[in-house]
Amino acid sequence: MSNVPSDIEIAQQAKMLPITDVAKSIGIEDDDLELYGKYKAKVSFDAIKRVAGNKDGKLVLVTAITPTPAGEGKSTTSIGLGQALNKIGKKAIIALREPSLGPVFGVKGGAAGGGYAQVVPMEDINLHFTGDMHAIQTANNLLSAAIDNHIQQGNVLRIDSRQIVWKRVIDMNDRALRSVVVGLGGKASGFTRQDGFMITVASEVMAILCLANDIMDLKERLGKIVIGYNLDNMPVTAADLEVNGAMAMLLKDAIKPNLVQTLENTPALIHGGPFANIAHGCNTIIATKLGLKLGDIVVTEAGFGADLGGEKFLDIKCRYGGLKPDAAIIVATIRALKMHGGVKKTELGAENLEALDKGFANLQKQIENMRKFGLPVLVAINKFANDTEAEIKLLEKKCAEYGVEVSLNECWEKGGEGGIEMAEKLVKMLETEKSEYRPLYDINDTIENKLNTIIREIYGGKGVVFETAAKKQVKRLEELGLDKLPICVAKTQFSFSDDAALVGAPTGFEINIKNVRVSAGAGFIVCEAGDIMVMPGLPKVPAANRMDIDEKGTITGLF
Amino acid sequence: MSNVPSDIEIAQQAKMLPITDVAKSIGIEDDDLELYGKYKAKVSFDAIKRVAGNKDGKLVLVTAITPTPAGEGKSTTSIGLGQALNKIGKKAIIALREPSLGPVFGVKGGAAGGGYAQVVPMEDINLHFTGDMHAIQTANNLLSAAIDNHIQQGNVLRIDSRQIVWKRVIDMNDRALRSVVVGLGGKASGFTRQDGFMITVASEVMAILCLANDIMDLKERLGKIVIGYNLDNMPVTAADLEVNGAMAMLLKDAIKPNLVQTLENTPALIHGGPFANIAHGCNTIIATKLGLKLGDIVVTEAGFGADLGGEKFLDIKCRYGGLKPDAAIIVATIRALKMHGGVKKTELGAENLEALDKGFANLQKQIENMRKFGLPVLVAINKFANDTEAEIKLLEKKCAEYGVEVSLNECWEKGGEGGIEMAEKLVKMLETEKSEYRPLYDINDTIENKLNTIIREIYGGKGVVFETAAKKQVKRLEELGLDKLPICVAKTQFSFSDDAALVGAPTGFEINIKNVRVSAGAGFIVCEAGDIMVMPGLPKVPAANRMDIDEKGTITGLF
Repeated sequence: MSNVPSDIEIAQQAKMLPITDVAKSIGIEDDDLELYGKYKAKVSFDAIKRVAGNKDGKLVLVTAITPTPAGEGKSTTSIGLGQALNKIGKKAIIALREPSLGPVFGVKGGAAGGGYAQVVPMEDINLHFTGDMHAIQTANNLLSAAIDNHIQQGNVLRIDSRQIVWKRVIDMNDRALRSVVVGLGGKASGFTRQDGFMITVASEVMAILCLANDIMDLKERLGKIVIGYNLDNMPVTAADLEVNGAMAMLLKDAIKPNLVQTLENTPALIHGGPFANIAHGCNTIIATKLGLKLGDIVVTEAGFGADLGGEKFLDIKCRYGGLKPDAAIIVATIRALKMHGGVKKTELGAENLEALDKGFANLQKQIENMRKFGLPVLVAINKFANDTEAEIKLLEKKCAEYGVEVSLNECWEKGGEGGIEMAEKLVKMLETEKSEYRPLYDINDTIENKLNTIIREIYGGKGVVFETAAKKQVKRLEELGLDKLPICVAKTQFSFSDDAALVGAPTGFEINIKNVRVSAGAGFIVCEAGDIMVMPGLPKVPAANRMDIDEKGTITGLF
Repeated sequence: MSNVPSDIEIAQQAKMLPITDVAKSIGIEDDDLELYGKYKAKVSFDAIKRVAGNKDGKLVLVTAITPTPAGEGKSTTSIGLGQALNKIGKKAIIALREPSLGPVFGVKGGAAGGGYAQVVPMEDINLHFTGDMHAIQTANNLLSAAIDNHIQQGNVLRIDSRQIVWKRVIDMNDRALRSVVVGLGGKASGFTRQDGFMITVASEVMAILCLANDIMDLKERLGKIVIGYNLDNMPVTAADLEVNGAMAMLLKDAIKPNLVQTLENTPALIHGGPFANIAHGCNTIIATKLGLKLGDIVVTEAGFGADLGGEKFLDIKCRYGGLKPDAAIIVATIRALKMHGGVKKTELGAENLEALDKGFANLQKQIENMRKFGLPVLVAINKFANDTEAEIKLLEKKCAEYGVEVSLNECWEKGGEGGIEMAEKLVKMLETEKSEYRPLYDINDTIENKLNTIIREIYGGKGVVFETAAKKQVKRLEELGLDKLPICVAKTQFSFSDDAALVGAPTGFEINIKNVRVSAGAGFIVCEAGDIMVMPGLPKVPAANRMDIDEKGTITGLF
């Protein structure tokens, strides 16, 4: 694979079509588009209304085994699959999350696929794109300013400054903002209180944008945001502060889906990108629904593994969007499965059938998980150069024994061409196996029961243990009648358990919930197992240090 | 004038042309544009290069008397004048600042003109527009994150955390962020230090964007930003932190001029909007220069009065851009002149010839100021409903006696039609009077001498008094060789003096300079007379509270 140029080199050489042509290929006319340059566009609500009567295409979730530092390539698989489906004559549309700008300057690089399976214009998608993140940030911070201003101007709502849960956000990896004191400087500059910043994608506004069905739903959900509690311990909302109208106004363009294309000109809707731990980690309902109206098959993905992002997609997003997914693809790599079998990252180069055999347990459990939701499952092995013939054979054999269809995927190296087998197997599955999708639990059940269902059925654990603070929080939510909502578990993505070191498919563990809080606007209850990082930091040598632009406007160092 | 609908009602009924048509009217083809929807576009650098050989049009500065709470209507006059010039057959282009989003939610409303002299789409221009503000904010805050990260990761540059002058910014009126403590929360979350947020437009990145001649100039200037001092009291720059390349990359689109139109389809370049106190308060050099290549006449404006924004336009912007303005228009209102004559705001409704006669001193001094730079001057009286015949007569008589051309301007009520006399007088002036533009002082003079020149020649004062801290700061800049730069005075805009209550044309005062600091990237020395507000707050009932959006996407309450 060493002959493959860097992602940015490939992306800069892409033969992009004008986005108006891409749009036309799925029935969207020029007048339906709001262009952002030649290769990005937002689709108007008029167009969305116009196609509302179309028959829905098939919805395919791309999810994965439990992530490891070896990487899985979920986005690359989703994009490559879309390209491959187009190659075999299907009108495929890809629906993905938009990347966060902050982490681009850290270590990680972008989130626009890789190799010959990328969405383009990659630089724009990874930088400001169409401004959605900035709009979300502004809406979030308007609410913050309104809170402190309300207190400053007499505090009629009697907001308890010790119980404000709404944080400011910024789209930057900036650890110094994790924990701050605001309102210093005397009478004219507000009341002093402790506060903190999260990265923008962690904002509940982002989750709301992704779960809203239209602009009025958006505004209503924004109004329901609980910003904190008053001195009587009753919730105070954004509607109480009368700024949800202004917030919705700030999001008037952000709520429209963004259309771009892959390296092979497959249409891609890249819209919304909530955190996958304290939020649900999927692109917007609006984009997914639009894709279903325009294409034969929509390929979408969810953050982290099938147990975390997959479960949230199926229990939160599909519930709120009335979506009925038709199949799940579980991405795995030989490397990652060997790590689940106990191999260190430094030793992944060597063949190790024993570890692969052992690590298969993780994949098996994730297959089982998706089947519990009633979905037909296809395993996609994302091929790496070091994978040996024997390893691939073994993995295929294990899958056959377990009774799941499997396909090698070489999209990173070969683009759509490398995913044709996968695409064909998927199409066959969609034609022959019927999805019996159903969510896992009843939202009217108690928080404890809902959690136990997820932990026992999906994680393979014994059950939940609430720490003291969490117990009180559950009680408060029950008293306030805010408990009849889906659950959003925030925990390490590296294990089924709450211990990142427990790879494979552990059993018998309990999940310790430290904090329980409501995202009443988004419409879920966040249950935090451990301390969740909502503001990353920059590394010793940030990626930003090697980024540059020349006199022609050509960017270097971005991945 | 009460028959005139609200600004937003007028704006929403505007008959906009596709921006591609507006562009074509000034020789910009579709391929030269990067569209942001149908009515906004950025002009590509290819187009800018292509027209570089064109002959320059005439450059007209719209400035004003010293501002009062009565309002002057500088933007309305600039826009109306552009419309009027087009009506009399001139190819006029308007070059203005872009508004800041934060203050929109406070009291003020937007900055896109008013009545029948507005730039449109007004909502977009006042909200996220083409994302320039957000890009500037991100570039600014990347540098902030890099500073704290550098300290966290070992502080090789020995940055003195007590001497960091670079602040974070946010585009929001949020007083609680004026003075903060960051880096709380323990070892993983940075070293604790005092910090503060400014509103985005106050960022030096904004000033740099506005003074850069191209992307390489931008990058170089960003690298020169002094973020603070090390433990040896030597300056530390953005280039030392190796992030100016990434910052320039973030600004790759923001640096391209934005094209929109007026209510009467006159082309308008709205690009860059730096603070007029701690920065120079004019739109970008790039936009102004482009306008000159495309039009017969470019109408541009500067913040505050002719002594402040006008002086900075002529001594900072024109110097760095190699611009040679051809005339100045000084906007005045009868109301404001009466305030300069001592009338209270509540008593402006009544005729008061005596106060008007007395207040004329302010206008006279501002005319004198523009003439000191060698510019022909036209006074534009922005007409209000309460102005009496006798008052208008008196003002015209005073102007005639003083030997300055004057014209009534009714653009707010009548659009371009209301500015035809003004446009005709301007055209005649441009044809008959030659500009002998020259900057006021030699940048190689000492800081004290440069300041004294501005204070004596322009403000009418006795001279500068440096407070103790400022004295030391001047000495440091001299020792570092950072003193050979233009001066940017930051002081109250409501008086020639540093006392906001001293209206009219006071003399004999001294200007007390509290702080002197260098904006080495922008290329000027900021001399602060008093405490300059760089982060506004929201009022008791913020404008945000009445803003809303309906199911059709129609915005209400925005002005």
